[in-house]
Amino acid sequence: MSQPATAITPRRDEDFPEWYQQVVRAADLAENSDVRGCMVIKPWGYGIWENMQRVLDGMFKATGHRNAYFPMFIPLSYLAKEAEHVEGFAKECAVVTHHRLEADGQGGLRPAPSAELTEPLVVRPTSETIIGATYAKWVQSYRDLPILINQWANVVRWEMRPRVFLRTAEFLWQEGHTAHETEQEAREETLQMLRVYETFAREYLAIPVYVGEKSEGERFPGAVQTLCIEAMVQDRKAIQAGTSHFLGQNFAKASGIEFVSRTNTREFAWTTSWGVSTRLIGTLIMAHGDDDGIQLPPRIAPAQVVILPVTPKPETRDAVLKAVEQLAAALRAQTFGGEPVRVEIDRRDIGGGTKNWEWIKKGVPLRVEIGPRDLEKGSVAVSRRDRGVKEKEFLTTDAFVSGVSGMLESIQAGLLARATALRDAHTVVLNTREEFYRFFTPSNPDRPEIHGGFALAHWNGSREVEEQVKADLKVTIRCIPMEDSPEPGRCIFTGDPSPRRVIFAKSY
Amino acid sequence: MSQPATAITPRRDEDFPEWYQQVVRAADLAENSDVRGCMVIKPWGYGIWENMQRVLDGMFKATGHRNAYFPMFIPLSYLAKEAEHVEGFAKECAVVTHHRLEADGQGGLRPAPSAELTEPLVVRPTSETIIGATYAKWVQSYRDLPILINQWANVVRWEMRPRVFLRTAEFLWQEGHTAHETEQEAREETLQMLRVYETFAREYLAIPVYVGEKSEGERFPGAVQTLCIEAMVQDRKAIQAGTSHFLGQNFAKASGIEFVSRTNTREFAWTTSWGVSTRLIGTLIMAHGDDDGIQLPPRIAPAQVVILPVTPKPETRDAVLKAVEQLAAALRAQTFGGEPVRVEIDRRDIGGGTKNWEWIKKGVPLRVEIGPRDLEKGSVAVSRRDRGVKEKEFLTTDAFVSGVSGMLESIQAGLLARATALRDAHTVVLNTREEFYRFFTPSNPDRPEIHGGFALAHWNGSREVEEQVKADLKVTIRCIPMEDSPEPGRCIFTGDPSPRRVIFAKSY
Repeated sequence: MSQPATAITPRRDEDFPEWYQQVVRAADLAENSDVRGCMVIKPWGYGIWENMQRVLDGMFKATGHRNAYFPMFIPLSYLAKEAEHVEGFAKECAVVTHHRLEADGQGGLRPAPSAELTEPLVVRPTSETIIGATYAKWVQSYRDLPILINQWANVVRWEMRPRVFLRTAEFLWQEGHTAHETEQEAREETLQMLRVYETFAREYLAIPVYVGEKSEGERFPGAVQTLCIEAMVQDRKAIQAGTSHFLGQNFAKASGIEFVSRTNTREFAWTTSWGVSTRLIGTLIMAHGDDDGIQLPPRIAPAQVVILPVTPKPETRDAVLKAVEQLAAALRAQTFGGEPVRVEIDRRDIGGGTKNWEWIKKGVPLRVEIGPRDLEKGSVAVSRRDRGVKEKEFLTTDAFVSGVSGMLESIQAGLLARATALRDAHTVVLNTREEFYRFFTPSNPDRPEIHGGFALAHWNGSREVEEQVKADLKVTIRCIPMEDSPEPGRCIFTGDPSPRRVIFAKSY
Repeated sequence: MSQPATAITPRRDEDFPEWYQQVVRAADLAENSDVRGCMVIKPWGYGIWENMQRVLDGMFKATGHRNAYFPMFIPLSYLAKEAEHVEGFAKECAVVTHHRLEADGQGGLRPAPSAELTEPLVVRPTSETIIGATYAKWVQSYRDLPILINQWANVVRWEMRPRVFLRTAEFLWQEGHTAHETEQEAREETLQMLRVYETFAREYLAIPVYVGEKSEGERFPGAVQTLCIEAMVQDRKAIQAGTSHFLGQNFAKASGIEFVSRTNTREFAWTTSWGVSTRLIGTLIMAHGDDDGIQLPPRIAPAQVVILPVTPKPETRDAVLKAVEQLAAALRAQTFGGEPVRVEIDRRDIGGGTKNWEWIKKGVPLRVEIGPRDLEKGSVAVSRRDRGVKEKEFLTTDAFVSGVSGMLESIQAGLLARATALRDAHTVVLNTREEFYRFFTPSNPDRPEIHGGFALAHWNGSREVEEQVKADLKVTIRCIPMEDSPEPGRCIFTGDPSPRRVIFAKSY
């Protein structure tokens, strides 16, 4: 039997990276711009980001944070203050050197030599240094602490191999920056925000994540500890989907965030930073997409239900459109996840088949068709994105309206269950170096882009082993899991003692 | 009698520009950063911006627009495409010339010579050119129109004399960019968005605005028509608070936004753009502030009610704090303007007087004190920001809760009435050149910063007159009002015929 046709070519199992690009295009999420490495986020993609922002913003505020905004330009001298930080970020910056253009005499423009900046500015790759300099002015006494602030912003990291949503020169993110009186409080904050990200990924994105600590080699430049959430996507590679950094007193010392303590001594503050970005949209696509496009978890979908009026004849058109409006109003009066159900009506005068496929590719959870015959019967034809593309359920309008929230809940839960099953099926414990190398060596030449998965293995904690494995297999330690009772053993590479297994994988 | 002490020094009538800076500081809204011309928007100031964003975003969506995001970098060659546009914006740009830093050998950093960009990039001062280039790819047929998109973003215009919120190198804004099939549709869009801004200013910011068209000299570079809303603030100067541009086919031609029409001809699209920025926060301060700080219209205030627990003795502290929580919950269950009342509790252990004054300066509409004696009586002491600072009204808790929405409504209406009275009192019709020059020449040397106001006068439409008046008095035409039945007359400067009076004023 021949393979059924799919909306996306190639399929995931044929060429996963190309499938990803095609889904981004087919779902109308984003596109590359003419500016190297910079993307245009189109309305459907931006709608996903708006929902992510709204939910996360609520979670940040519920944990006591407020938003603020800091300059996007950072003087070179600020970046240079923290030695590891500059090492990590100075390599990939957009550098502003002039503040005016002039005619170049050939019909074009050039930076005006007379308008060269005394000190060049860098477009923020992250804001620890500029925010640190500000906090240093705000903090005098322990009474000024904690400072619990988040910023929604664009950042720039020059990327040599850009890939839409996953790695772009400019991207959108949030960055929390907090300053505390004590080490313990800052460590608790770091962990709290990691848990916020974990909850968000699971409950809203329907993505189960491993949480843990980065090894020294993978740590944020300048941090004492980097915690992260790591997701597995369908080619079994890992994506770092969010990080929370305990910065110790490193940035406080570099920026001069000092305060008079309760015992009247001068102390440096303890700081944290934490962030997630538009990379989450890429994660979502690779976690839930199928060979017909993206599948959006209802809680984060810009539209949860799309209504497709079927109007074959002009004389029944008005009646159908009226019924569609009524259905939309009835659905919007229902709530899902504490919010009104989000409904879109597609009134465009194009073929029903084209329309239907567009919404399949865009991943809207429920599609509803209403035509003249449905009106007579008082019914609607409902298709779920998580079922076969031709499957339709015929329901009375009332039954659909009263059941819509339950259907969305079932889709949300189904996506999480499927992603969890995939992750669990491809997370293995490996006890020897041989098993490890075999696991990460592509065995099937027909499917070079589908990888082994996550390997839990003992490791002696050394950077040498990490680097060897990375050089041999392009495999890195994704995180050192945070468990209550880790099982000690021996490093599978060296035989040295190991306090616990860590997670290895290939990654984006 | 000596003047009563005020929280802000100097008073408005002593030195308005300095008063403005002091209010920004005292209300904890923003501060200058170490990066020249760039501000830090602090949580209270950003909270105002968040409310503005939320309301405007709802109004944009209700008029059919969706959000998207475009690159912040613009290639020089894009800027050069539209001749007037480049003339207007190339002068004040942040220019990115390198994509990497390297050690300068003296412990610092410098742009790496090996990483110079082939084509420099400009940080967007506005996005017509980069968005136009994108729309050119999206639009093939009339069926692809209209495109109705808005973007929330940061933009950069290098400013020689920056002033927080009013004129900063980097600021936050929204920019709508739409493309249409017909001239009429684009003109209707331009007007529709102007009306959205006018409604927002009046209903939310409590600021009455004049709406009209800019003269050629004040038009957006590249636009066919610039519509604007102009507010009067308390020194009687004008602020352009929002603009909506009909761009004709200028940018469509420059960017190549072409489509196959219904009659199968190739046509250029008709485009518009429209925006408001964080400048609205500066407008709000100058429109409603008094000598004790800012006064926030309830509809836009980050907190509408602040509860100040009075806990003189440790033994009654718990009971007071419990009552405060109950009151906050009861208030949040009330709605104002269709949303739950926004309540903050100030639990800080600092003196009651200091606390009270902080909230006066921050302009929160209602302050409520509860102490042990109030608990006994079941009452609260309520102070309105629009009344004298020592005025308190003692109400039963129930009466306050059930009346809170009405009190907020009364404050909102009062602010609008006061701002309208100020504007009307200082908007005059002037019929001779002599009157005009007298009106705009400071007569009182003790109050050099308080100006004449808005002058309605006939004008012959010539750029020469505009430039003469600007050179002589620093007065410009703020707008040509849009009226149904304008009164014709003769230009007060030249005696030439004039179809209608226009509004002249000094401006920010």
